Amino acid sequence: MRPNDLNEHELRTGPSNVHELIARRWSTRAFDPRKPVTRDELLSLVEAASWAPSSHCDQPWRYVICDRFSDESAWNNALACMNEKNRRWARNAPLLMLAVACERFRGTGEPNRWGQYDTGAASENLSLQATALGLATRQIGGFDTAQARAAFDIPDGFEPMAMIALGHQADPDTVHADFIEAESGPRKRGPLGERFFTGGWNRPLE
Amino acid sequence: MRPNDLNEHELRTGPSNVHELIARRWSTRAFDPRKPVTRDELLSLVEAASWAPSSHCDQPWRYVICDRFSDESAWNNALACMNEKNRRWARNAPLLMLAVACERFRGTGEPNRWGQYDTGAASENLSLQATALGLATRQIGGFDTAQARAAFDIPDGFEPMAMIALGHQADPDTVHADFIEAESGPRKRGPLGERFFTGGWNRPLE
Repeated sequence: MRPNDLNEHELRTGPSNVHELIARRWSTRAFDPRKPVTRDELLSLVEAASWAPSSHCDQPWRYVICDRFSDESAWNNALACMNEKNRRWARNAPLLMLAVACERFRGTGEPNRWGQYDTGAASENLSLQATALGLATRQIGGFDTAQARAAFDIPDGFEPMAMIALGHQADPDTVHADFIEAESGPRKRGPLGERFFTGGWNRPLE
Repeated sequence: MRPNDLNEHELRTGPSNVHELIARRWSTRAFDPRKPVTRDELLSLVEAASWAPSSHCDQPWRYVICDRFSDESAWNNALACMNEKNRRWARNAPLLMLAVACERFRGTGEPNRWGQYDTGAASENLSLQATALGLATRQIGGFDTAQARAAFDIPDGFEPMAMIALGHQADPDTVHADFIEAESGPRKRGPLGERFFTGGWNRPLE
């Protein structure tokens, strides 16, 4: 434990007083384009996502998974939804996924205000399971939601939230030149007291 | 691996082909009211949350943490925000937290459409770290957001998403009689093919 280390989070390899699975997960841009993700790995990833908690256990997440090795056309559609900067590195990821949040409860049709929140939890489980399998991930907000909606026939009432690039980690030097510095830079988070309060708003955890 | 087990997820102890940390996390209602959470444990929990990924690494989550052992007044305020059914079991949890999503990027002030999604990921990290520490959690959607906003001075632009009860697991028999069956029942998820698609919408992963 590092109880005095509240004001600085600047570590390459991750924090030391959290579980190693959480500590080791980070968002790379360097993927090995030659190594596919196996079917067993994919099943493990989606099962991990499915075990996230959700309001009324509604499981309001949906994922569209595009594998370059089995359906290059769908994978190209996914890549084309991203902005140009993200395409520069994501083109090496063998799996591109779209994470979609359902805005209504499946059972009742009533609005589900936790659709996005719960989908974020499922994507984190998926990312951590990837880490456990020796795979790497990076989520992408920079994509065209309207294009994704059209490309994958996302119905009304569902909101595309993020794309997820997933595959085997590659050497940071293999990433597009624009990203080499970011790939090897320190991992940073803000001081905990700015976001974690005790007893009331803006009363920093000390 | 259980590759043929796509249509049934009904397990007491959790899935077997995902990492044990993810498999062991479940949402209990049985907390031991006598056992506090230590300061080192709390720091570990919030650090795990802080290492979740977020759009532009904005870390749009905020948590208000109320510890019955150090600030019973704040803890009572938190408990009072819940609906009566949740109060019946949550009153035994020594920590009650409020997870809040920021709706704008901290740096630019522009709307952040991933505020809730990213906060869900942080809460999942926190819950998994609790599991790693031998602690238990349950998130609660059934609370009065207006009352929480007033009780904890949540400003405009921040959305209270969930409360989190956290503490040491107690024997399921000690929970309020209304919940004994739920506490010992099977853990269920829907068939994976209903929520995980390949290549396009409603094309079930097989």
